[in-house]
Amino acid sequence: MKIDGKTALYLVAGDPIAQVKSPGLYTEWCVAHGVNAVFVPFHIDAAEGAPVLDALRHVPNLAGLIVTIPFKPLAADHCQMLSPRARAAGAVNVVRPIGGGQWAGDALDGIGCVAALRARGIAVSGATVQLVGAGGAGASVAAALAEAGAARLSVDDLDPGRAADLAGRLRREFPGVETGIGRIDPQEVTIFVNASPAGMAEGDPLPIDPGDLGPGKLLVEMIMQPARTRLLAAAEAAGCVVVPGREVLDGQVTETLRFFDLN
Amino acid sequence: MKIDGKTALYLVAGDPIAQVKSPGLYTEWCVAHGVNAVFVPFHIDAAEGAPVLDALRHVPNLAGLIVTIPFKPLAADHCQMLSPRARAAGAVNVVRPIGGGQWAGDALDGIGCVAALRARGIAVSGATVQLVGAGGAGASVAAALAEAGAARLSVDDLDPGRAADLAGRLRREFPGVETGIGRIDPQEVTIFVNASPAGMAEGDPLPIDPGDLGPGKLLVEMIMQPARTRLLAAAEAAGCVVVPGREVLDGQVTETLRFFDLN
Repeated sequence: MKIDGKTALYLVAGDPIAQVKSPGLYTEWCVAHGVNAVFVPFHIDAAEGAPVLDALRHVPNLAGLIVTIPFKPLAADHCQMLSPRARAAGAVNVVRPIGGGQWAGDALDGIGCVAALRARGIAVSGATVQLVGAGGAGASVAAALAEAGAARLSVDDLDPGRAADLAGRLRREFPGVETGIGRIDPQEVTIFVNASPAGMAEGDPLPIDPGDLGPGKLLVEMIMQPARTRLLAAAEAAGCVVVPGREVLDGQVTETLRFFDLN
Repeated sequence: MKIDGKTALYLVAGDPIAQVKSPGLYTEWCVAHGVNAVFVPFHIDAAEGAPVLDALRHVPNLAGLIVTIPFKPLAADHCQMLSPRARAAGAVNVVRPIGGGQWAGDALDGIGCVAALRARGIAVSGATVQLVGAGGAGASVAAALAEAGAARLSVDDLDPGRAADLAGRLRREFPGVETGIGRIDPQEVTIFVNASPAGMAEGDPLPIDPGDLGPGKLLVEMIMQPARTRLLAAAEAAGCVVVPGREVLDGQVTETLRFFDLN
């Protein structure tokens, strides 16, 4: 790898940042493919997201941003162009400049979820989805599942206002999907998604009752640290098909490279 | 080289940026020495230097800045701690965070000039210096030569106010040096420094009369593109000892690594 003055700069923006894997992943891809670009971690103080993002408009060699917690909704507000799924998610995880100081954004961290389900031969079309957690990742998964043809989708969040906001956006962008808030009868659910932080710390309560999980059901666990949450282990023990967060992340790599015009 | 979320981030800030060599130079040093750090080009629109530098205070994994044209004086204004030579130069080319959102800055791009002279066995102590060009690079060279014991130093610039400002700062920080503005009798000059942009473009007038250069005189040419300016060629033809800009740059590498606590 050779960095020079013409190296295209991609920033991975978040707070905290030490845990991110994407700078290494995408930089290695660029090295392997002879692309003169580098992805570097860019830690922004959570309270200073807006001025820092504003400032980055004045950095002409900035080729793109990968956005992580807590800046996904804020970054969407900074984009002049959003995909329908990004509008539905109300959040973006990738941003690229499109000239004239304007930015385009997309929500690709749900895309990998759809790819992971398809890889298991599971149809999203017609599915009934229970989403727990209406933050950036949850919103993006919900938007991707709605776009992929889910029949019904219910959004639950500790903050009911946040759940209602996401449900409203999903309804607006994907009117063909029956969208609601709260919990639906677990018997009717085919795909459970935990996009809440419950499970990151050891003593966290389970966000979904393992009793509702079993053969014929599917659990998408968006938490990546720990790689194996208590919920994931319980679901597997119950005979439920599981998709770990790592696989959801991996599934978005191709789409992310395409968004940045790298592949 | 392996970039991850803990990689320390160094930005090389300038406008334009495509010509800079330092991102490659310092990144390669870090790779060779097993330091988890990367130096990347960071192009800031010239008119937006202040808000972008302000924003960078809120980037906790920013380990340092290498500052180039036109941001050296502005970056000095953004530092809470300056070395005497940086105060004299009124400009910095390196910045590092020192905690509490504060920055320390130094002017190291003149240091290499002193090292290059010493490498040729030329004493700076007691020298009479004619500086042409009181911009960031010129100011930094002047400050380094004053610090290294030059006896007399005169600053010439197309903008007399800028020359007077630099002379005033040099006098304040290094009162032992006889400092003036304009041109002094070339017969008395031992070291000529071209730190003006004259020579970057082909049709530029010569900033120093080659007739004043000859055996026993020394010319420091700070221009790096082209590597061999018309002035440099004329000086060599006249038997004058010359120090090219590239060598001045190389001479500051050790000091720059030390400033960033990397070596």
